[in-house]
Amino acid sequence: MAEETEEDFVVESMHYSRLLLAVDDDDDDSSHKAFNYACTVAKVYEVPLGIVSVLETGDLNIYQSLSPDMLSDRRSEIVAHLNTYVEKAQAFGVQDVQPLIGEGKPARVILEDIAPSFNPDLIIVGSHTARGHSHIGHVASEIAREANASVIIVR
Amino acid sequence: MAEETEEDFVVESMHYSRLLLAVDDDDDDSSHKAFNYACTVAKVYEVPLGIVSVLETGDLNIYQSLSPDMLSDRRSEIVAHLNTYVEKAQAFGVQDVQPLIGEGKPARVILEDIAPSFNPDLIIVGSHTARGHSHIGHVASEIAREANASVIIVR
Repeated sequence: MAEETEEDFVVESMHYSRLLLAVDDDDDDSSHKAFNYACTVAKVYEVPLGIVSVLETGDLNIYQSLSPDMLSDRRSEIVAHLNTYVEKAQAFGVQDVQPLIGEGKPARVILEDIAPSFNPDLIIVGSHTARGHSHIGHVASEIAREANASVIIVR
Repeated sequence: MAEETEEDFVVESMHYSRLLLAVDDDDDDSSHKAFNYACTVAKVYEVPLGIVSVLETGDLNIYQSLSPDMLSDRRSEIVAHLNTYVEKAQAFGVQDVQPLIGEGKPARVILEDIAPSFNPDLIIVGSHTARGHSHIGHVASEIAREANASVIIVR
């Protein structure tokens, strides 16, 4: 019976129609590749691209000492960083680019807040390759495991 | 200095040029979507598509009782299954489709044997969605974490 189902299955063209790229300030090779890939797909298929960056505030051990001014500075940095990505994507030819900012633990914010409201069918993340070794970061791993959408880890 | 590097970065078109699709006998929705996606990309960009299926022999608790005849039957099933995929991909319009068979623990065989010899830049796996819940299977998770290539988990 399994064979019948299998034989009946017909291949259909498929592409993604709503892309969410997760970036961070750590502009390594895999982040650039992920951005190139996201822009290419968004341009070729003329689909919306959301670019999300998250201000990490989840770890109080690190951030509890940040003053409101320092937090505000970090927010400004993230906005500037995100705007750079948006401008580059637009200059490349992506029509619909939306900057999205979150605050908290990156994977949780993306999974529970940004993705449910932006509603992507593909989430694009870098692998945060360190010094030539391929390894997958915690954020990428958590998103790959739990997202409702497809996830591509770009190396 | 970080801002300078970031500003200097230029977006470049990027697509994958050698695709490896991992399939198994569990023909769920995510497997079919993964196959659709793999065939679409391989056809649009006219790039080679390898399709790998692994005969699980790693778990002796389950398989130690399999006679040589039963193993041989399982091999034949996997070959037939793989041939079905190859024929469907070719009928869809993928020019270069290569069936690849492994034996052992699926993730290890794919990561240590199939991928290094086929040398894909993108590995495509289904998420093995069970009854509407999105969850990522062990094999997909292990491949996503450890592969040298980009990995897409199709849901």
